Amino acid sequence: MAQPKYRIATIGSHSALQIFKGAHDEGFKTIAVCKKGSERPYKMFNSADEIITLNSYRDFPKIQNELIKKNAIIIPHGSFVTYMGYEEVEKLKVNYYGNKKILKWESDRYLERQWLTKSGLKVPLLFKKPEDIDRLVIVKFMGAEGGRGYFLAKDKKDFYRKIKPYQLRKYVLQEYIIGVPLFIHYFYSSLTNEIEIMGCDIRYESNVDSLGRISARDQIVLPKIDPSYVIVGNIPVVVRESFLPRLIEMGEDVVKTLETILTPEEEIFVFEISARIVAGTNPFIEGSPYTWLKYNKPMSTGRRIAIEIKNAMNKNQMKKILG
Amino acid sequence: MAQPKYRIATIGSHSALQIFKGAHDEGFKTIAVCKKGSERPYKMFNSADEIITLNSYRDFPKIQNELIKKNAIIIPHGSFVTYMGYEEVEKLKVNYYGNKKILKWESDRYLERQWLTKSGLKVPLLFKKPEDIDRLVIVKFMGAEGGRGYFLAKDKKDFYRKIKPYQLRKYVLQEYIIGVPLFIHYFYSSLTNEIEIMGCDIRYESNVDSLGRISARDQIVLPKIDPSYVIVGNIPVVVRESFLPRLIEMGEDVVKTLETILTPEEEIFVFEISARIVAGTNPFIEGSPYTWLKYNKPMSTGRRIAIEIKNAMNKNQMKKILG
Amino acid sequence: MAQPKYRIATIGSHSALQIFKGAHDEGFKTIAVCKKGSERPYKMFNSADEIITLNSYRDFPKIQNELIKKNAIIIPHGSFVTYMGYEEVEKLKVNYYGNKKILKWESDRYLERQWLTKSGLKVPLLFKKPEDIDRLVIVKFMGAEGGRGYFLAKDKKDFYRKIKPYQLRKYVLQEYIIGVPLFIHYFYSSLTNEIEIMGCDIRYESNVDSLGRISARDQIVLPKIDPSYVIVGNIPVVVRESFLPRLIEMGEDVVKTLETILTPEEEIFVFEISARIVAGTNPFIEGSPYTWLKYNKPMSTGRRIAIEIKNAMNKNQMKKILG
Repeated sequence: MAQPKYRIATIGSHSALQIFKGAHDEGFKTIAVCKKGSERPYKMFNSADEIITLNSYRDFPKIQNELIKKNAIIIPHGSFVTYMGYEEVEKLKVNYYGNKKILKWESDRYLERQWLTKSGLKVPLLFKKPEDIDRLVIVKFMGAEGGRGYFLAKDKKDFYRKIKPYQLRKYVLQEYIIGVPLFIHYFYSSLTNEIEIMGCDIRYESNVDSLGRISARDQIVLPKIDPSYVIVGNIPVVVRESFLPRLIEMGEDVVKTLETILTPEEEIFVFEISARIVAGTNPFIEGSPYTWLKYNKPMSTGRRIAIEIKNAMNKNQMKKILG
Repeated sequence: MAQPKYRIATIGSHSALQIFKGAHDEGFKTIAVCKKGSERPYKMFNSADEIITLNSYRDFPKIQNELIKKNAIIIPHGSFVTYMGYEEVEKLKVNYYGNKKILKWESDRYLERQWLTKSGLKVPLLFKKPEDIDRLVIVKFMGAEGGRGYFLAKDKKDFYRKIKPYQLRKYVLQEYIIGVPLFIHYFYSSLTNEIEIMGCDIRYESNVDSLGRISARDQIVLPKIDPSYVIVGNIPVVVRESFLPRLIEMGEDVVKTLETILTPEEEIFVFEISARIVAGTNPFIEGSPYTWLKYNKPMSTGRRIAIEIKNAMNKNQMKKILG
Repeated sequence: MAQPKYRIATIGSHSALQIFKGAHDEGFKTIAVCKKGSERPYKMFNSADEIITLNSYRDFPKIQNELIKKNAIIIPHGSFVTYMGYEEVEKLKVNYYGNKKILKWESDRYLERQWLTKSGLKVPLLFKKPEDIDRLVIVKFMGAEGGRGYFLAKDKKDFYRKIKPYQLRKYVLQEYIIGVPLFIHYFYSSLTNEIEIMGCDIRYESNVDSLGRISARDQIVLPKIDPSYVIVGNIPVVVRESFLPRLIEMGEDVVKTLETILTPEEEIFVFEISARIVAGTNPFIEGSPYTWLKYNKPMSTGRRIAIEIKNAMNKNQMKKILG
């Protein structure tokens, strides 16, 4: 096959190393768009054939014409969407992999919830006001960077006491489900209308994942520790095999509702969905147990995306995969 | 070599994906026996050359003749034994990989304990009655599905208070060892009489592995959380290298006692042994650090079993490996 | 290329399996120096072309001439340094990979601290005497094997109460940082003066990593549990990609200060540095996500070391890499 004419581009962060590796594996050239000072990983790991440096990600629209000239396809990832904001992403004119409309649904907790419940998934309750709290809740701040300041409250009184330092912040009151978090990575092909399970991970979060290492007796007498949920890494995991039939159904149900998801991440009690590649796929740059099963060769989500683009090129169906 | 005439069959659950992948790698055809509604993973991952659907696993004996005609070898795994019951397994006439008699020893906590102590391994104490409790114990219900309801008790009084909601359940009182659980996967070849270490994992259990993420102060004031030990996944781990000589010895000691174990899983303080493939091997479908060392090619426990069968065929020693 | 004339030797423990596998991958013969009774893993995994058995590691100097005759290069690892003591290592005449002088800096908490702070890294505070404690500290015993007996103290009074059972031990008082531990593996090439990120891991420590599995209510009423930090394994992890630029800088800063580090391990709040291969690299015997990115073939730290030696041989620069 002739050298693909498209170039794979994304912002240098989140899962870009994986995206670029996957692109290289499939013969694409890559463009990393980096904030000044963050270029090093993309050099160290020979990931970027070209690096475009910005002073601020807000300058991204300014380099759009350059990207369009280079026939780039943007692969959105979590940081891409966070840094740009979904309204800005919707305005982009450069080729964009996936469905842009989904971003709005994913960015708004209430729309996200509507999407998930319409798909028949079990989601934690949301309470409209502190007076409604009738069970353990987690108080999450809107736009909070990585879960800083989130806290648990058991009732109205507990809430009002703990909210004091955050008086002006917008928050949601979400039922706190006692159970272990686990993230499932799906890939949905709009060419074949099929869903694939690419892997699973556990987030490694600071400081909540360090609290258990301090004995309860010490925690009680020591100065109060406020929990925070800042992701610092991802740990590979496989899910109990008997859960897979349900997880496959859940993935399909979500796709049926909106038809255009690419890599949602879920739990059985679903509290979040991401409609783009998730960083939890990063442990699997050389493949996960699940992709080894299906492909029998190294296959990351980043590479799967590159293959999707090649398949669309070969079938002359680029419109189906660009948003 | 000619295409092997046997087919590899097992129940679609637990570690079947791995078993089928290993069988395919070694040129065997595969048969998944699935409960209605659980077939999807075996299609999605191209695992089963044939799927036989049952309404209930209790119907398994009804398809035995079909399996015998197809020259199937059943590979037992955890769910296979749980769903069927060891008495039913013992009655099976279809080819069965491994030693059936071991299942009884593994299924009964007291026989298991006898086996382990005879092998010279350190095991947690068992207390006959609540009045004997003289240290921290974990109260485990017999036949409990995945550790639901298990609780800790520090003395007789504590026990009687906490047992109330479970009055009619059978239980064992096991010393609770403070330490981190770690599971070692062994493979024992009855052809070569050698033991191999295939990998290690940590179980990811709900809800106990989520408790530490809630600060002690919150746990104390919030509504009481009952611990449960339901396995939802497996996390890869490597064990400290200086433990390996002891772990190898322990594996050999267990084999000497009963001569026919296939994949026991252990801790240094051994609280459990499984005499069949464990789900903890699932993170290593493309090999674990240990199998890479030994084989220098992708090697899962599932594949190792398929190789064992091939070796037995080539040596005309099928009797040695079928139970 | 002609068969390399050097042999790779190390003590059979810690990360020796990985070192030997890496050596074999690059065509070197290997020599395992084992304490009596610990030879098995090196046979089971076909790691050692030759095993030299010692009654005690203190006898190591006695076999030096044999190693010199065999043209061995010692690859130091954590247990090598611990078993021998850095003063003994400094006296060795056999070829030694890496810089011996670094060991003194790594072995002494105060020198280590000086090195790290001079490199501009953020380190936990050290308090000179219990009276100075003004925040949560961890009391670490000098030469403690694997963190046994370490405890937390919130002030002078708390310290004096908890130190009682350890009256005669030497200790350091280190600020206790609330956050998740994460270990970064670097490789520094003194041939190219470049740093590489080889992987990341989480240590699995007994018993601290089991405490969170006991509910706070149970912990409070049950007999007191003393924390300990004994490493029993290593769990693979990938770090949040947006941290990488900072981590790369940190690695380079440390190298600039002493010019000769090989595989330091770090946290962003750095509390420890190891100037030799760390056991945390063991999950990655077939490569980590990071080495797959860079090398696109199986690459462990052990293999990277073997390549470094080959490169030095080819360039006739053995002096640059031997200490």
